[in-house]
Amino acid sequence: MNVVDVKASRHYQVHIGSGILAQLGSKVTELCHPGKAVIVSDSNVYPLYGETAAASLKAAGLQVASFIFPAGESSKCGTVYLELLNYLADNRITRSDCLVALGGGVTGDLTGFAAATYLRGIPFIQVPTTLLAAVDSSVGGKTAIDLPSGKNLVGAFYQPHLVLCDVDTLNTLPEEIFRDGCAEVIKYGILYDEALFCHLEDCGIHFRAEEVITRCVELKRDVVMEDEFDTGARMKLNLGHTIGHGVEAQSGYEISHGKAVAIGTAIVSRAAYASGKCSEITRNRIVDVLKLFGLPTATTFSAQELFTSALSDKKRSGDTVNLIVPSTVGNCEIVPTPVDALKSFIEAGL
Amino acid sequence: MNVVDVKASRHYQVHIGSGILAQLGSKVTELCHPGKAVIVSDSNVYPLYGETAAASLKAAGLQVASFIFPAGESSKCGTVYLELLNYLADNRITRSDCLVALGGGVTGDLTGFAAATYLRGIPFIQVPTTLLAAVDSSVGGKTAIDLPSGKNLVGAFYQPHLVLCDVDTLNTLPEEIFRDGCAEVIKYGILYDEALFCHLEDCGIHFRAEEVITRCVELKRDVVMEDEFDTGARMKLNLGHTIGHGVEAQSGYEISHGKAVAIGTAIVSRAAYASGKCSEITRNRIVDVLKLFGLPTATTFSAQELFTSALSDKKRSGDTVNLIVPSTVGNCEIVPTPVDALKSFIEAGL
Repeated sequence: MNVVDVKASRHYQVHIGSGILAQLGSKVTELCHPGKAVIVSDSNVYPLYGETAAASLKAAGLQVASFIFPAGESSKCGTVYLELLNYLADNRITRSDCLVALGGGVTGDLTGFAAATYLRGIPFIQVPTTLLAAVDSSVGGKTAIDLPSGKNLVGAFYQPHLVLCDVDTLNTLPEEIFRDGCAEVIKYGILYDEALFCHLEDCGIHFRAEEVITRCVELKRDVVMEDEFDTGARMKLNLGHTIGHGVEAQSGYEISHGKAVAIGTAIVSRAAYASGKCSEITRNRIVDVLKLFGLPTATTFSAQELFTSALSDKKRSGDTVNLIVPSTVGNCEIVPTPVDALKSFIEAGL
Repeated sequence: MNVVDVKASRHYQVHIGSGILAQLGSKVTELCHPGKAVIVSDSNVYPLYGETAAASLKAAGLQVASFIFPAGESSKCGTVYLELLNYLADNRITRSDCLVALGGGVTGDLTGFAAATYLRGIPFIQVPTTLLAAVDSSVGGKTAIDLPSGKNLVGAFYQPHLVLCDVDTLNTLPEEIFRDGCAEVIKYGILYDEALFCHLEDCGIHFRAEEVITRCVELKRDVVMEDEFDTGARMKLNLGHTIGHGVEAQSGYEISHGKAVAIGTAIVSRAAYASGKCSEITRNRIVDVLKLFGLPTATTFSAQELFTSALSDKKRSGDTVNLIVPSTVGNCEIVPTPVDALKSFIEAGL
């Protein structure tokens, strides 16, 4: 098992290993002594891992309750958020209890936002069961729900007390969902770590999961510790996301987050080459590794359509959108792009 | 005009004076340069002060939009919170814009929670127009909404960028609502400041508003700076509230917050005397000043009823409730009270 220390506004650990879900209860009670734990999970994940998680918590002496919601992004909404809060209040959950987010990004984001706001904050544990949640959303304290007019428009910065990633849970992931997570893994390579990128080029989808997840978490930890509240360096994690969010939105969220990020990353890399910001080799390596992982690198949406969606990006400040643009594999820069110039930039990358 | 500096996780000022609402726009642009300001106000307050606030913001060069909700505690709920968030998203409000809470505690708490969570935090300005909001809820960063099973069960610690209290707005307050605020003013005297208490004994409801509000804000500022996140000293502000919340809840919120706090304060003072924690003189002075302000000091609810409600208090930790108990006028102590002993304590104060 690997342990990554995160020293943000809360100091906590990320435990990454095989078969460690059964140690959930003992790890929680090492940290704090909650009377009750509420497992929050969706209709896909709870049947697979809910029992193991609950048994481990009970064995450690906790009372356990479970809140299970319908799987899917549409549950990351105000309605389910309020249902969860009412469930906590009706069960008289106090600040001495804790929430356990068992699942992927939707579960972690929703549970984290409830934990951040119920009684103005109670402890919560992230137990990611998707690759995307393991390498990205479970670490760093960004919690959120969606609004009808956009994803992640409401939320809080709120760090978990512990992240427990049992890599065995990835074995039950549908291949599509696993590939979605790979888009974020590739992102870390492009942003910060050519050696990681080379390992992905060499092994493709058969990369060494425990090591790669640990490396991604370390890289994310470094960014979060530099810029917890997303006012500078953390913006780089948005590589492929500004345009990717546009792809997602234009598809009515039919195209998954991972695929949309892959498309956004490919577009921004081609546009970077076209505007002389990176070499042809860099562009090709990025596009090729995305293809190697079976991820899409093109879209039928027009530059105008993607431009319109990109304008609602949270990162927009006034008339400028901050794009993350690869220079070489392992190095990217933040390029403040005037709204006027954005459409032709996207056009060059299609 | 008086200015109180608050150095919490955000450093901001509280401006207290006569006729200063018309300076709202210029004060906001001195602090930050929002493109748009969204005035959030209720159906009672907006018709009185909305135009003045909007005109001042427009004169300072801001675009102004307004979100007006039905007056009353029942609007401090998840439904109106989500409506407000959707209004902000539909109007493409960004982190470079700001919210203005124009009204009493309901407006400030609701707006503050929306500001804390929309895009994970955007600037907001408190413009309290009730005495209670001026001396209590607008300062210190506690924001919240209610759930069906309890008040303020969901929220965030989120400091405003500015508090602007135009004492002239208190002139339009219904006398009942003004007296409600007096219960919180009296609370500051009992907790921290015998001189303030004496002024209230001398002048009754005709106390010097600008000075008294300034003094209360200074006292609250000191507590907030000592314990912003409510893990210790800030708990004292709960004087009269644990039992007061019980009175409110038992009455189905027919009894106002201020009246309930007055009743809670009287009960805890009589119980303090009964258990030898304060003198007869202290008890009498507290009960008498409440009466002088036309506030209730007794309830028909039984000790059992109040006990049951007090158990759902947020401040409860495990089997202990922290009661705030007067020692002398100007000094109170935190008394951790076992749940078992709470009912007979309440009984002694009825």
